[in-house]
Amino acid sequence: MSTLVRAARGELPSDVVFRNAELFNPYTLTWDSVDFAVKHGVVVGTGSYTGIREVDLGGKRVIPGMVDAHVHIESSLLAPGEFARLAALHGTTTVVADPHEIANVCGTAGIEYMISERDGLPVDIFFMLPSCVPASPFDQGGAVLSASDLAVFKGRPGIPGLGEMMNVPGVLSMDPGVWEKIRTFSRIDGHAPLLSGKDLNAYILAGMESDHECLSLEEATEKLKKGMYIFLREGSTEKNLQELCPLVTPATSFRCAFATDDRHVDMLVECGQIDDCVRKAVSFGVEPELALRMATLSPCLRFGLGDRGAVAPGKIADFCVLGDGEVFTVMKTFRRGREIHPGPFVRRSCISHSIRIAPPIPEMLEIKGSGDAQIISVIPGQILTGKIVMNLDAGDIPDTSRDILKVVVCNRYRDHVCGTGLVHGLGLQHGALASSVAHDAHNIVAAGVSDKDIIQAIRMLIESGGGLVAVDGGAAALVPLECAGLMSLDTYQEVYNQLRALNAFAEGMGSVQDPFMYLSFLSLSVIPHLRISDHGLVDVDRFVRTPLFINMNK
Amino acid sequence: MSTLVRAARGELPSDVVFRNAELFNPYTLTWDSVDFAVKHGVVVGTGSYTGIREVDLGGKRVIPGMVDAHVHIESSLLAPGEFARLAALHGTTTVVADPHEIANVCGTAGIEYMISERDGLPVDIFFMLPSCVPASPFDQGGAVLSASDLAVFKGRPGIPGLGEMMNVPGVLSMDPGVWEKIRTFSRIDGHAPLLSGKDLNAYILAGMESDHECLSLEEATEKLKKGMYIFLREGSTEKNLQELCPLVTPATSFRCAFATDDRHVDMLVECGQIDDCVRKAVSFGVEPELALRMATLSPCLRFGLGDRGAVAPGKIADFCVLGDGEVFTVMKTFRRGREIHPGPFVRRSCISHSIRIAPPIPEMLEIKGSGDAQIISVIPGQILTGKIVMNLDAGDIPDTSRDILKVVVCNRYRDHVCGTGLVHGLGLQHGALASSVAHDAHNIVAAGVSDKDIIQAIRMLIESGGGLVAVDGGAAALVPLECAGLMSLDTYQEVYNQLRALNAFAEGMGSVQDPFMYLSFLSLSVIPHLRISDHGLVDVDRFVRTPLFINMNK
Repeated sequence: MSTLVRAARGELPSDVVFRNAELFNPYTLTWDSVDFAVKHGVVVGTGSYTGIREVDLGGKRVIPGMVDAHVHIESSLLAPGEFARLAALHGTTTVVADPHEIANVCGTAGIEYMISERDGLPVDIFFMLPSCVPASPFDQGGAVLSASDLAVFKGRPGIPGLGEMMNVPGVLSMDPGVWEKIRTFSRIDGHAPLLSGKDLNAYILAGMESDHECLSLEEATEKLKKGMYIFLREGSTEKNLQELCPLVTPATSFRCAFATDDRHVDMLVECGQIDDCVRKAVSFGVEPELALRMATLSPCLRFGLGDRGAVAPGKIADFCVLGDGEVFTVMKTFRRGREIHPGPFVRRSCISHSIRIAPPIPEMLEIKGSGDAQIISVIPGQILTGKIVMNLDAGDIPDTSRDILKVVVCNRYRDHVCGTGLVHGLGLQHGALASSVAHDAHNIVAAGVSDKDIIQAIRMLIESGGGLVAVDGGAAALVPLECAGLMSLDTYQEVYNQLRALNAFAEGMGSVQDPFMYLSFLSLSVIPHLRISDHGLVDVDRFVRTPLFINMNK
Repeated sequence: MSTLVRAARGELPSDVVFRNAELFNPYTLTWDSVDFAVKHGVVVGTGSYTGIREVDLGGKRVIPGMVDAHVHIESSLLAPGEFARLAALHGTTTVVADPHEIANVCGTAGIEYMISERDGLPVDIFFMLPSCVPASPFDQGGAVLSASDLAVFKGRPGIPGLGEMMNVPGVLSMDPGVWEKIRTFSRIDGHAPLLSGKDLNAYILAGMESDHECLSLEEATEKLKKGMYIFLREGSTEKNLQELCPLVTPATSFRCAFATDDRHVDMLVECGQIDDCVRKAVSFGVEPELALRMATLSPCLRFGLGDRGAVAPGKIADFCVLGDGEVFTVMKTFRRGREIHPGPFVRRSCISHSIRIAPPIPEMLEIKGSGDAQIISVIPGQILTGKIVMNLDAGDIPDTSRDILKVVVCNRYRDHVCGTGLVHGLGLQHGALASSVAHDAHNIVAAGVSDKDIIQAIRMLIESGGGLVAVDGGAAALVPLECAGLMSLDTYQEVYNQLRALNAFAEGMGSVQDPFMYLSFLSLSVIPHLRISDHGLVDVDRFVRTPLFINMNK
């Protein structure tokens, strides 16, 4: 510390002085023409310094390194190392991640794997502990994590608290297991789509301090007013930014942050991460300086990360140099005062995990009967699903003219446990899709026009140790996800190419854009309204299992 | 917790429902017409609730209980109980206090006394631990507190961290004792008047996160930009609010709070506390809602007081009902959902402490010589002092025509250790003033026209066990401060009356307004520019002792 203090006073030369920066100040939302000095990776201060090395920024704009307030790295389909390489390119220097997906597959060993992978990466990864493994009583996944399982991680470095508490009914009904977790941690992220009024009051009172699931401005305003931090989320299929942007004003921006939650590699490569959120927010009318505060200081305040969020004395020297154009672009990312250059790819190993179940037999996928059927409806740009009730006969399925397909969830940890339902909105005209990414238990979810293709798709998944697959008669496309059936161990460029090819293949079958992100959320039994589990349909609003047909035809 | 959750959900009646409030929301800076419910002293939520008791607020404005971000209770001249009774009347429900004064007199026993006194008071008192006892190496007070002395308080409830770090030279020079304290605590308040540039960078890097000593807007802006919380201070003689108000904007208000630091009982009674800061800030052009955020939420964010700062689910039910007029006034203060009524006065005992020194003998007060003398200059409305250099002869003193008087500091813990200097700006035409409140060592400081009256005033102080005294020939007025020579054990009304009478008496001697507050700061050897200690003059800018005459006449 003595060296830093002396460097700050100018008694010792700094390691690097960055000259002629147009520096964004997130406290005052102003831009200042300054030099700043870095020693031992820490900003010693702005002002006139001498350094062992000097870098002239030529008046370019500089912002603090950006922060993703809530992300599941697994959802990128990349292992942490490749995720971080890609994130850093886009100006992200800190992410607050929730290893919820791998924890559902591998339990605490999955969390340990993610923690061990973060060393030496170009991005700092903080982990909020997965609070809901399984996410609901309807899910039968690879693990069950109790409060005592999570408590062992408490106090370890880089663990700010407990991640998104999805089990809203458990919180409100004083479920002992849920409450033991709540009592164990003091910083808890919320997850309460559509919750409002008294139940929202109770949920906040119970300790949940943030929410990234707001769907409407009205919902976000209520939560903000009641004291929650609001993370404006923009994921591959969870696009809430445009609706929520009017929330952001000079007065509220310190309580708002950006989160990507779930972004496939293709969106990360093509659009970016928090840089994309900034661009979009500005295009939706948010003042650039407010968006930049949300991308930098605000999430650090929320998570108590006092060592970052600004280029100011004592903060770590993580920052981005911006492009000159009017549109916000990150040209260079610096971490601890050094420019991040994507190093050579290093293939890492994954935690040991394999899928050993037998593929389903055709009888397990059968639907029988006729009557008022409850159909899961995909909502474009949302992970919220709708529920359509339609009178039909099992024999009518598939009904490609009305876009009603079979959807199946098969437990990937136990043989021959499958639930079957119907889905509207995926668009397939032939073939089938299957995924071992199936929130949150990460069983196998599949949907398609023919049972044969569905079974073939699931068989391919099992053989490849997990992945995303599209089968169309004799042809198929695959993104192998050999790391716990969730993540690839390949380079992000390779996974990007595989995913593009897969999506193009699926679109050739008639699919909507990003079908696998939608597919993977059809099983998420904590987000309204209707979901499919390995034991059949779940009515999330009533938090009960529900039959496919609610009224059988006489 | 179960009861609270059920009450929040509306499954159980609340204890009290407050109907028809026009409620200030510090997150959004808006006013909402709502009901809110309280159970077990906690706000369970806004909305439509039923309660065992219901209170109709008739559309009156309600704000969260106000917070003083930095105050020395001792400076009110009241013991904690009376201070709290008075504070609560003015809408203060939480204060962050620094028991720095009594710690300088009584050491850790003084801190323990203050902590023990806070139980059962109508205001929550948090104590930041006094970091600088003594305040500087020039002070010889009643105690020396090391890091290990302070460490025993760490982790005790209601101790958010380390109080104002005044020893800026010690921080910057890596003084081991200072740094042991810095390393022991993670939340540290700063105190760095006029510090800027690289030394400010170093001071912030070292861990000081707030400042309440900004004198100019430029100074405050620099500190805010570099990451500090700024407390806008308005004390009896430390009036920085008007100058600093332009700092407060919708974008910055969450980093700004109000502090009264040192307010005598008369100012508390006549003007108020944080309510007065709000009124003044508004009169200086701050939007009322920004001032209210500064008075409520912002200081809670700074000190990590997550249970307060808003009337929102899970927060303690501390709030104020405002008067109807355009001017901001607190009509009623509620604590934990109950209206605070000033209870009957209870006389408390104080920690045992007595002043046993012998009064100075005339020879000790003598000034000899002639030449360029360094004179301490009182600056109206500031605790900053000026330095005037003037050629004069010791025989010219007192020079009432030019308002140059003798000022004396006598150690109150050791016999016959006195330092003598000159002061300009107190205005006395005859008589003398003396005070056992003499920042920060709390020796005895006296100033006056005749040595005889000075000695007589000091003698009276010793006899009364401390206090404030004015002597004018045969007449005298006194405020006895029997609690460590700093605080009275009387009611605030009684102390107010005594102080008014004393000030009137002093003004009859020609004194400026509030002479005792100025007098008490003449010895504060950590605030620029020139001070007097029991060992003579201190040049604070150079942080060295300095003689009265810098050039003797030949």
